[in-house]
Amino acid sequence: MNYDQIFDQAIERLHSEGRYRVFIDILRNKGAFPNARCFAGHNGPKPITVWCSNDYLTMGQHPKVVAAMEEALHDVGAGSGGTRNIGGNTHYHIQLEQELADLHGKEAALLFTSGYVSNDATLSTLAKLLPGCVIFSDALNHASMIAGIRNSGCEKKVWRHNDVEHLEELLAAADPAAPKLIAFESVYSMDGDVAPIHAICDLADKYNAITYIDEVHAVGMYGKRGGGISERDEAADRIHIIEGTLGKAFGVMGGYIAADKRIVDCIRSYAPGFIFTTSLSPVLAAGVLASVRHLKSSNEEREGQQRAAAMLKSLFREAGLPVMDSVTHIVPLMVGDPVKAKKISDILLAEYGAYVQPINFPTVPRGTERLRFTPGPGHTDAMMRELTDALAEIWDRLEMRQAA
Amino acid sequence: MNYDQIFDQAIERLHSEGRYRVFIDILRNKGAFPNARCFAGHNGPKPITVWCSNDYLTMGQHPKVVAAMEEALHDVGAGSGGTRNIGGNTHYHIQLEQELADLHGKEAALLFTSGYVSNDATLSTLAKLLPGCVIFSDALNHASMIAGIRNSGCEKKVWRHNDVEHLEELLAAADPAAPKLIAFESVYSMDGDVAPIHAICDLADKYNAITYIDEVHAVGMYGKRGGGISERDEAADRIHIIEGTLGKAFGVMGGYIAADKRIVDCIRSYAPGFIFTTSLSPVLAAGVLASVRHLKSSNEEREGQQRAAAMLKSLFREAGLPVMDSVTHIVPLMVGDPVKAKKISDILLAEYGAYVQPINFPTVPRGTERLRFTPGPGHTDAMMRELTDALAEIWDRLEMRQAA
Ligand SMILES: Cc1ncc(COP(=O)(O)O)c(C=O)c1O
Ligand SMILES: Cc1ncc(COP(=O)(O)O)c(C=O)c1O
Repeated sequence: MNYDQIFDQAIERLHSEGRYRVFIDILRNKGAFPNARCFAGHNGPKPITVWCSNDYLTMGQHPKVVAAMEEALHDVGAGSGGTRNIGGNTHYHIQLEQELADLHGKEAALLFTSGYVSNDATLSTLAKLLPGCVIFSDALNHASMIAGIRNSGCEKKVWRHNDVEHLEELLAAADPAAPKLIAFESVYSMDGDVAPIHAICDLADKYNAITYIDEVHAVGMYGKRGGGISERDEAADRIHIIEGTLGKAFGVMGGYIAADKRIVDCIRSYAPGFIFTTSLSPVLAAGVLASVRHLKSSNEEREGQQRAAAMLKSLFREAGLPVMDSVTHIVPLMVGDPVKAKKISDILLAEYGAYVQPINFPTVPRGTERLRFTPGPGHTDAMMRELTDALAEIWDRLEMRQAA
Repeated sequence: MNYDQIFDQAIERLHSEGRYRVFIDILRNKGAFPNARCFAGHNGPKPITVWCSNDYLTMGQHPKVVAAMEEALHDVGAGSGGTRNIGGNTHYHIQLEQELADLHGKEAALLFTSGYVSNDATLSTLAKLLPGCVIFSDALNHASMIAGIRNSGCEKKVWRHNDVEHLEELLAAADPAAPKLIAFESVYSMDGDVAPIHAICDLADKYNAITYIDEVHAVGMYGKRGGGISERDEAADRIHIIEGTLGKAFGVMGGYIAADKRIVDCIRSYAPGFIFTTSLSPVLAAGVLASVRHLKSSNEEREGQQRAAAMLKSLFREAGLPVMDSVTHIVPLMVGDPVKAKKISDILLAEYGAYVQPINFPTVPRGTERLRFTPGPGHTDAMMRELTDALAEIWDRLEMRQAA
């Protein structure tokens, strides 16, 4: 058994497929986002414009968020010092859970260290509490939901992406007496399309299934108070469990679920991924609290972001770039090849100081590699025009016009 | 299918076993730890002394840590805004990984959002890269390692806690050609005992196994530079993968592994729990960087902590309290019953303003419920004497002397 050789081969496979990942080394400039500094080469940091942040509304740099974190840091210190049960439960955690429950009109909420962990821990635990449970999972569900479903050990049925007819076929074929859980996302982050929530909930009613929605890319972004697509579509009360992140539109880090008291109490009491881990830093909890509260009453950030996204889509379209059909704030350009996607990204960074990460397998299916732009309220019209011109030039240079 | 009823029953089971958990609501006072405020009842916050924090060295309130976090917060903002691959890789992350690799004398390190995730993600991914792998797991391994091992889908052999003869029996019985991984902790946090690292590594050499150690309760605490028990015992170079947390002795939040480059690169490239999640907040990374650097050169905190632990153990012993055999900084008192453990904890908090969480199943086996004290450099002799007197009085009051 030569372990080194096995590990070397695993890395070699990535190189040979052109999808070995090199992380770009950046620091954002607080107060000046999307401007940032990039540490590549040896000539010191270079100024760049970031086009692929998931801090969609720049809340990570909002004065209220920064002030709340600074205050908590000085009041209670850096970390919580324990799990939620053993010394790591603070007043910030409790207040934040109340705020998130209120955001979604639910009785209770529960914090996790990340959105990934909230999906993994909740789905795997829920299904274990429901013996014989069958989980119905949208084909494009995020890796963290897939992990939770796999780790639950339940039977899993995958329905074609956003295809409610297929979902109904699968539900109808399942044992009527078996507990059922339907898991899906609201905004699919790599395509920018949206789930038909009401149609899915109609099926859940008909077949007596629990509904679980991942609103990671929608919380803070949609709905009058930032409650997500389920708020916008007035469907929150039809969903049993709403899951979200604190690391994207809310600009900090962490994850949560909101649901009725008994479900939250079950996950709180039975999920190893919640129980056996140091709780979220109170500094982060304080920052998120300020962020959620702000976005409950302010629509300015959401509107600025939507305006920028609409403009960038139409600039791309006018320039003949292969912008994908997105009905949300996400602006993906299809490339369809991992090596080309990386090449375009490299040129953009080196020659134009624009940073957009190429998205490759396993984040998207092979053959659908793309560039994914997330303009925010801070990206100006001039920046967007410059970016479009740069991309048009690169598309010509790489002779990709016919492919589009 | 009545879901509500199933969930209600799950909660009822906890109540009936006396192990339903109610989280105490506290805020620590920065600069004055172990003093804190407790929000219970309706008379406003009450001052308490915390005896069960895993911020063992009070680094979460160290001026260098707080200053570094404040600086990062003002320089780059609250969150990273992305996964490590997509916009969320900052200079802080890279520097911290270098610092942690150096701490353990390894080529590389990799950050995760928590110690739980580092165990789960690394173990499950490692084993998948090694087809047919058999994992040998100490019987008292932490829930996060158990999760990673289960999620790997590998064959698992559990050896009796710290029993190297049993480990050898199992290794000898396994297919000599199969890849093997031995997973264990250095300090077992609920008992305070320590693994025989060299003896385990001897077996790993003999049977050609990879070694994986969880040093969560030892990093920052043992070794001249805080490299853990593997540093103290000069065994770090015999361990393939050292795992640690940033949320206990380092006082902040997060987790990591340190290993040779090719192993780190494999986990970085293949582990969903690393890839598909917003990276650690740069504010936290900056705080940890200051904490690790400080504890590399300062022994003052470690010495103060060891002094306090030794004193508390001897005070407990003199008072005839059932202190368990611990060779580390952890001071557990055996109670053996979940209802009594909670009762003692409740009296301590209500009458003496001392907070120690009762530890019950599933954190420890049923019938071994206990109180677990972690005195730190800030607990004075007078505080420890007061605590001991209080416990002696409660032990008498509850007529537990005979049971001890
Ligand atoms: C749909 C979806 N769910 C969950 C997550 C995980 O959330 P977090 O970054 O907070 O771990 C992500 C991305 O990170 C995501 O895209
Ligand atoms: C032995 C052990 N490993 C791992 C963990 C998880 O580390 P973290 O709290 O950083 O998630 C813990 C406790 O929390 C632990 O006790």
